[in-house]
This record gives sequence, C-alpha cells and structure tokens, in this order.
Amino acid sequence: MEFTAVYHKTSEQMSYALDENDLVVNLKTGYDVKQVFIHYGDPYDAGILGGCEVWHGKREEICYKKRLRHQLWWTTTLRPQYKRCKYYFELHTDREVWYYLEDGFLTEEQLNMEGRMLQCFTVPWMNPADINRTPEWVNDTIWYQIFPDRFCNGTPEKNTPDIKPWQTGCVKNEERYGGNLEGIRQKLPYLRELGITGIYLNPIMEAESNHKYDTKDYTKIDPHFGEKEDFTRLVKEAHGQGIRVMVDAVFNHCGRQFAPWQDVLKKGQNSPYADWFMINDWSLLNKRADTRDGRFYSFAFTDGMPKINTNNEEVVSYFCKVCEDWIRDYDIDGIRFDVGNEVSHRFLRRLREHLKGIKPDIYLLGEIWHDAGPWLNGDEYDSVMNYPLMSGIHDFFLDESLDKLEFEYMVNRCYTMYMQQNNNVMFNLLDSHDTERLMNRFHNLDIFYQQLAILFTMPGSPCIYYGTEIAMEGGFDPDCRRCMPWDEIDSRENQTRIGAVRTLIEMRKKEDACRSLYFHFPDEYPQKRCVEYIKLDAQGREIEVLLNCSAEDMEVKAGGEVLFGRNFSGGILGENGTLIRRKQ
Amino acid sequence: MEFTAVYHKTSEQMSYALDENDLVVNLKTGYDVKQVFIHYGDPYDAGILGGCEVWHGKREEICYKKRLRHQLWWTTTLRPQYKRCKYYFELHTDREVWYYLEDGFLTEEQLNMEGRMLQCFTVPWMNPADINRTPEWVNDTIWYQIFPDRFCNGTPEKNTPDIKPWQTGCVKNEERYGGNLEGIRQKLPYLRELGITGIYLNPIMEAESNHKYDTKDYTKIDPHFGEKEDFTRLVKEAHGQGIRVMVDAVFNHCGRQFAPWQDVLKKGQNSPYADWFMINDWSLLNKRADTRDGRFYSFAFTDGMPKINTNNEEVVSYFCKVCEDWIRDYDIDGIRFDVGNEVSHRFLRRLREHLKGIKPDIYLLGEIWHDAGPWLNGDEYDSVMNYPLMSGIHDFFLDESLDKLEFEYMVNRCYTMYMQQNNNVMFNLLDSHDTERLMNRFHNLDIFYQQLAILFTMPGSPCIYYGTEIAMEGGFDPDCRRCMPWDEIDSRENQTRIGAVRTLIEMRKKEDACRSLYFHFPDEYPQKRCVEYIKLDAQGREIEVLLNCSAEDMEVKAGGEVLFGRNFSGGILGENGTLIRRKQ
Repeated sequence: MEFTAVYHKTSEQMSYALDENDLVVNLKTGYDVKQVFIHYGDPYDAGILGGCEVWHGKREEICYKKRLRHQLWWTTTLRPQYKRCKYYFELHTDREVWYYLEDGFLTEEQLNMEGRMLQCFTVPWMNPADINRTPEWVNDTIWYQIFPDRFCNGTPEKNTPDIKPWQTGCVKNEERYGGNLEGIRQKLPYLRELGITGIYLNPIMEAESNHKYDTKDYTKIDPHFGEKEDFTRLVKEAHGQGIRVMVDAVFNHCGRQFAPWQDVLKKGQNSPYADWFMINDWSLLNKRADTRDGRFYSFAFTDGMPKINTNNEEVVSYFCKVCEDWIRDYDIDGIRFDVGNEVSHRFLRRLREHLKGIKPDIYLLGEIWHDAGPWLNGDEYDSVMNYPLMSGIHDFFLDESLDKLEFEYMVNRCYTMYMQQNNNVMFNLLDSHDTERLMNRFHNLDIFYQQLAILFTMPGSPCIYYGTEIAMEGGFDPDCRRCMPWDEIDSRENQTRIGAVRTLIEMRKKEDACRSLYFHFPDEYPQKRCVEYIKLDAQGREIEVLLNCSAEDMEVKAGGEVLFGRNFSGGILGENGTLIRRKQ
Repeated sequence: MEFTAVYHKTSEQMSYALDENDLVVNLKTGYDVKQVFIHYGDPYDAGILGGCEVWHGKREEICYKKRLRHQLWWTTTLRPQYKRCKYYFELHTDREVWYYLEDGFLTEEQLNMEGRMLQCFTVPWMNPADINRTPEWVNDTIWYQIFPDRFCNGTPEKNTPDIKPWQTGCVKNEERYGGNLEGIRQKLPYLRELGITGIYLNPIMEAESNHKYDTKDYTKIDPHFGEKEDFTRLVKEAHGQGIRVMVDAVFNHCGRQFAPWQDVLKKGQNSPYADWFMINDWSLLNKRADTRDGRFYSFAFTDGMPKINTNNEEVVSYFCKVCEDWIRDYDIDGIRFDVGNEVSHRFLRRLREHLKGIKPDIYLLGEIWHDAGPWLNGDEYDSVMNYPLMSGIHDFFLDESLDKLEFEYMVNRCYTMYMQQNNNVMFNLLDSHDTERLMNRFHNLDIFYQQLAILFTMPGSPCIYYGTEIAMEGGFDPDCRRCMPWDEIDSRENQTRIGAVRTLIEMRKKEDACRSLYFHFPDEYPQKRCVEYIKLDAQGREIEVLLNCSAEDMEVKAGGEVLFGRNFSGGILGENGTLIRRKQ
C-alpha cells in the first residue's frame, strides 16, 4: 500500500461536526486503495478508557469519494449516538489489508495483539459551542461588487471642482469621478432586474483616497459618498428590493489622518494611542518614505497606511464597537475584512462573538488569498474570498497543457480545503478591484462566459464585479476601476451581454443543483479539454455542465433542456463553447 | 517523486511562530527527496498582492531532518524581517526537481509561465496575541503524582471508623485509607530528597468517592483530606522546598451531590441550573441506572457523574471563578483538567484567558489520550498528558518484532505532533491512577528502568506515579491505587530502587541535554533492538542513551562518563541493560 498517501486527523476539515448530530469524516488515500471501511462507536462502549477492556466498533463501508491530483478523498457522515466517537479505518488494496489508527498502520495480527495500546482516532464530544455555523442566506445570494467612486454618480449637480467628468476610458489612481451612495441607490432597480441579491461595497467610511482603504474616521460615511442618511436609505431600499448589503472593514491598517495615528505623530510615546500601532523607532515617526526601514509596520510598505495593533485590548474593543454601530445604525448584512489574514486571531474571535450576539446571521467574510483553514474553524470568519478557486480556473484556461482531469483535481482541491459549512457560503469571484478584470485575461468572450458558467454552478455564493455584466475591460489596479459606462448600457451589444449574465443568474436561482455542494465528474467524453461535471441537488435532480476548452468542435450527446448555451447548435459544441443542461 | 508523501500547510505544528521573531517551518516528504530548499521572503517585496509583479524569494537549503515511519520531516527556522512570510519549496530527488506551492507541484517551466497565479504558502503576520506561550518552569520540573487517599495518612489518631487500617495489599474501589493533605505535607522532605520539584494531586475537592472525581463542592477541600488551612500550609511549605503544586479539576462532569445537580433533580426544568447539564428526557431524571438510555449525558455511562454543559455561559463564568479562587486562595501552580477533551473549546479559551491574566505562568494541563493538536494552539492548554508517548514506549517493549528504527519513528512521531513550545512542557508519564502500574506491564525491573531512562531523557517534563521509586506493583484501577508502604520504605531493596530513581532525577536536573528538545538517532550498532539516541543541549554537549532491548549481550564502544547504568560492566551491556553516558 502507498502508506504516505494515507492521511487523516481529527481536526479542521478532516473530521468535524456538521451540526449537533452529524460528524463528517474525511480520509485521503492513494489510488491503490480500492475499498475503505470505518470501524466506529462510542469510546466508552466497552468500559472506561485505560482499563484492559477490548473495544470493538461497528464496521461500515465508506463509498463516496473524490479524485485529487495524487490521492483519493473518501468521505462519510456518522451520527454518534452520545456525541462522541472513536474510530479507525480498514484499507483494502488489491492485495493487502491495513488498519489505519492515529499512531500508524497495523496488520490484523498487530491489531489483535494482546495488551497493545490501540490509539484510535477520537472525537471526544461534539459541543454545540464549537460547531461551525454559517448564515443560511448566503448560499442563495448573487453578489455584485461596487467600487463606489466609479459605479454611479447620483448627484452630478453637486459635483465639486475636484470631481472629474464621468468617462469610460482609462483612469488614474488619484482621480475622483463622483460615484456615490445615492448613485447606487438609483441603480437598485437595475441591479434587481439583473437578479442581484447582495451588494458588496468597497469602503465607504471617510478616507483621503478614492478607494478609501486609508480610513480617517471609521464612524463617518465619507462625504464624497454621502451622509449617514444616504447609507441608511440605501440599505433600507436595498432590503426592500431583496438585496443585502455588505460593507468593507479596513482594520489591519488605517490612513494617515486617523485621529489616534495623528495623536501618536504629535505626542509620540506619550500618546494614549502609542500601543494602537506597531512602532519600532519613535525617532523616525514623521519621516515620509516607504517603511522598509521598519520604523513602524504598515500595510505592505506604505507609510500612509500604518498597521493597527489588533493585539491591543483597547483596539479590540474599539473595533467591536465600530462594527456594532454599523449593524445597529445601518442594519448591514455582512462585513468583509480587508487584509483579513494579518489581524490577530484573538481579535477576530472576540469580534465574531460580539457581532453574532447582536445579529446572529451577519456574514463575516475575510479577504484571504491563500488557504484560510485557520480562520474557518467556526470562531472567526464564515467565509473568505475564494481566490484559490479563481486562480485554479484561470490557470486551467491559461495553461493548455492541463487536461480536464486537472480541472477536476483543482475543483476538488478547493472544495476539500474547508468544512461544508464554509464551502456552502464561500465567496466565489473571478475578479475584483484587486485584480485585472476577467475579460482582460484572455480578451475572449467565449472563455469569459465559460468561466462565468463555472462561477454560477459552483458551491458557495457567486460575486460579479460591477461591469462584468457587460464584459468590461480593465487591467490591473487602477485600470480595473474604470467608470461604469451608463451612457452605453442600452447598446444592443451590452444588452445581449446583460441578457447572458441574467440567464446565468436566473438559472442559479431556479436550479437548486447550481447552488448545492454536490457534484461529480463523469468521463463521458474522450476530448482532453472537455470539462464536464454534474451538479446534483438534495433530491437528486441533476444539471450537466459542458465546456469545450479547445479549438476543435465536439459532438455532444443528446440531453435535457438547455439552460445556458454558447457556441452550441445542432448537437455540436464549438470552440470554447459552453453548455448547461438540466438532465432528464 | 513520491508526490503523496509531500505535505505542508501554514497552520498547527507545520508552520508557526516560535516567539515574536522566529517562524518554524516543517515539511514532510518521501524518502526519495534528497535535498530541500525553501524560497522565502516578504509577501510585499515586489509590490502589492494581485498586481502583475513577479515575486522572488531568497533561496536557502533546509538541512535538518528527522525520520518518520514513511516520510522525512524537514525543519527550519526563519526570521521574517517584517513579521510576514511567503514561501515555496524546491524538492530534489536523484532525478527530478519539483516546486511545491500551496496548490500543488510545478515544474520549473510552469513556475515561470507568464501570467500564472502562483499560490505560495503565506504566513500573513506573526501576531503577539496568537503566539503559543508556555510556562518556562515546567521543563525543569520533576513531577510526582499523588493519589491522596493512598499516599500518606498524616493524622492516624483522628481516623474515623470508615477508615481502613493502612495496608499494602490489594484495595477495593470503595475503601478509604485516610491518606490526607497533612500526610503529604509530612512527606515533603522525602519528596525533596528524592529530587521532586512538582506534585500533581488527584482531586482534593469535596466528593463522595475515595478518588474524588465525583465532585460535590468545587470550593471546599474534602473533609477526608483536610481543611482549607491544610492545603494552604501544604502549598506554602512545598513552595518553601522548591516544589510546585498542581491540582486536578473535574469540570467535564460533577458528582451526584453537586448542589446544582441536586437542584435539577428536585425542580427539573424549572431549576435555574436546568441548562448546566445535558438532559434529554426530563421524565427519567431520577432513575438510577447507567445512562445508555440517553436520558442525560454523563461521563462514560456513569449516572453518578452527570455531564456539565460547558457550552453554557453561566457554567463558563462559574468555573472561571472556581479556578480563580484556587489560584488566589492557595497559590497553586498548575491545573490538570480531567477528561480535558470533552469540555468545549470555547470554555477552555475563556478559562485560559482568565487564568493567565491572574497568574501568567500557571500551567494548564489537559487529560487527553489522543492527538491533542486542536487543544495546543496556544489558546487552550499548555500541555497534555503524553499518553501517545507512553503507548509508543510500551508497545515497543511489548512487540519484539519492532526494531530500533520503529522506536525512532515512534519518538519522532510524538515530537512532530505539536509545536516546540508544547513539546518543551509535555507532561510525560509511564503510568497513572488510570492505567496499570509500569512495573506491572512486564514484571521485570530491567525493562522498568529502561523505560524510566527514556522518560528522564525525553523533551518535556517527566512525572512518576507515587510508589514508582520503589517499583510498586498494581494492575488496572483500583489495583494501581494501593497504599504507599511506608513501613517498608527503608528496606535495602527499596533504598536501592529509590537510589536508582534519584540518580535518574539528578541526571535530568544536572544535564541540560536531558531536558532539551534536541535529539538524533545515530546508527552505530547493528543490533536490531539496540535503541540508541543522542540528546544535545543548546551548547552542543551530548549525552548518549543505549538500551539493549534484547536477550543477547552486546559490546559497547568506549565512551564518556556513565551517568546511569544497569546490566553494564566491562564494556558489555547485558540483557535489557541501560546505559546513559555523557559524551566527551
């Protein structure tokens, strides 16, 4: 047996309570393992631990599996009668049988050796307080990300001289275009029409820059975007139209104008806020240059964004209050935490406990680009921005040497990283204000829609970046933040594109299978770059997704009702074509 | 390359801050990997994440490794200048080079493919609040576990009729022998003489049984053991003799007489304590029988030990206060948590934060028999009872088919399960009130001392169970709880045995290498069951441990000063012989 391929542990996503009754147990093995059994039962079934009693579990086959690049992922759900569970695995290859326990692999003889201290895997107790619970509404949500300065200026008559005239070409980082909350409010009917049910807003609290990631005042709506009443009204009307609102919280760092930082700049170590930041050399505080000299820590090396010390208790309390007020004053539904991986875990745990106490179904989303397992154990974030999935999808389309199996491995990797509760509310995206735009990657509408087809059929919650509905172009920051071209929105081309996205959104809403956690990859087509997967809902109803990621036409088997098609006609799926069908 | 053997992630013991400056990075690979490099650097070195910048890390070889059963364990320590770190690995087999990133393995060509989104491993920020810190004094401590009813009766003149006369034969579960706190106090000089610097006491709070794991009152010393003043005096005098004191906390369940449970038995759902327990069927509360019917949850299936609901906020506060008072009233140094794996993680996090605020170097020890990774991330326990090591040692001596390599794998497995901070204060034991006695396992004094030699040279903190110094016999509970035979303590046999244990203790104290985290396994002897390992201290001074775990004499190479020897003479290490030497 390929011993090194076998992996299990009783923590993180490998073994966890799905709810108060169900225990999910996952196991990795090599491809040489053909059959897996789990022996499980109550740890005290044979008496109290430590005595000479012999414990025997109930033997059950694990049937369900996924394919990873080098390993198989076996999964089962147990229902421990007394909330505790002890288990080991029995692994069969074609020629061997091995018993896999916490301390290693045993032969049957070793397993039964008298006096041997068998170290089984143990889930000691499924405590309700430790269960990872995520808000149910998120999986039903279609997100739309708005960069406020560039989405819509609702009050052009009030433009001050620093506001540039709305234009749809390139933009520079320091420019302001006057997009604001009133503009967003006016476009709510447009968003509802498109099918959007959640808005994610880049920061709207007072800050110097146009992107507002350099907060000056966490308690005040930025005057460029409006006033308190504008946001109150926006959220209220959005709710009225079935649209939730998520704001951006920048707690990793602040802007130069944040009052406590200003106080520190003035008073140095005598400031009551001296420990709110991470300062190493007090003599160089007022120097203006990047922070590679380490005089204080900052976001990246930006001296205008000093790092906030979330290890400090006052800071923890301060931001708990800030968020509490956002919830109480505006009734927001979610908070996205910028640079959500650099703040302290202790801070996040306290914040979550505080905020879930006020609004139990608030959605806490971390900006984390890498494996976010440590933040998704149920006591910090509900979800993270699913950049690993974005990268995986992108790299598959970029690297034509990758065949459809690699696509399957990639998707399976992304959905075996976290617990089901998190997968179900994962924030899936293909681009954002921090990346080049989706359309920019390949400058190819067919590949653009293929990727959107994936986005709208993956478990989690899809988000499109404003302008994606018309396939807006734009390179890396600041080019991905161009103004929304409202004057051209009614062109036939744009309306066709909007229609396509609306079709995908409607499909996502109507077909439970699109939103579900369940999928598999049949091997019905020989073409190497024909991605094919089946999504299933809880009732077993299926939809089929077919993507021809090659330049050659391919013949498609007869199937059910077409939910979304592109480059598909007469049973032929053309170059970079997309086909989504409801299976009969 | 053996891909499935390669494993890393940026959490738990695989990648963690050792302190505010040092980042430990561990990697598993197959034995086919001959050389490993890490490419690392600041994540923002080339600009802000998400742009098109190309990041290059610094390339450094990882030289240090341990052998596991099927894999190599590579380890290095980095010092990220700005507290954040991004990295990937370069793996060399004899024929191939692979780059290992968070999303998988890349060839050099793929690594350099333009536009590819490389998903490096990322340690976003080493926050002080999240660093796993354990009390420094523990590694220097030699523990002695005392089962109070059976150690020493210090006031025999006060014996009540329910106390049986002290005797050294078999005991029954319900018997009381009058051991008490005053008895322990009287034996402090004995313990100091032996070299003991820490006492771990089984529960001493009021309870019905002799073992006191069925607490009646968490705030009152059990009258059988003494009064408040007795314990105050014991701790004070122990401290005066350089001996720390750890008590046992039974918070997973209580005894039938615990006032809140009595209240629930009387008032049912109307009791203010109704949610302090885990009750499923209120109509059957007063039934006396095991709890397999699930009417309420209990420790194992014992109806006299109802499970306490540590998910309840009042319960959390109640036990925080109980522990706080123990610290304030008695100045205890450690708390051992009984059934420490079944209480909620949330409870433990709150308790730790509370108690470390009162006494920062209090030692929090969990009773966990299995892999305790989830409890040892720095926010719950400092350490656990190292039963995996106990089992591993035991099984090696039991199963003669295991060769010395298996011993090496086992030790390396145990010391790669947790972070160094935890390994350094691991509570190592070979037996306890919950197992048969060490001497009972093989009824062989040579094997007994071989195992003690291991115990006293392992990283962590060794604990001997009372009576081990005279090789007391005793089977499983209750036989492992016999009375300490003080009348026979001065016999030549006992004094010889005490001398041997004292030698081991003195060696442990004098030789930094015994207590250090550093060891390796040279292969200097061909004998299959000749266990040999070298311990090193921070200055590189070495001690050598040789155990002949076979029936054949073996010739030993000339070496340094003998620190402990058994069955060793004239350069020959006999059957089951032990030799510990200071290397020149």
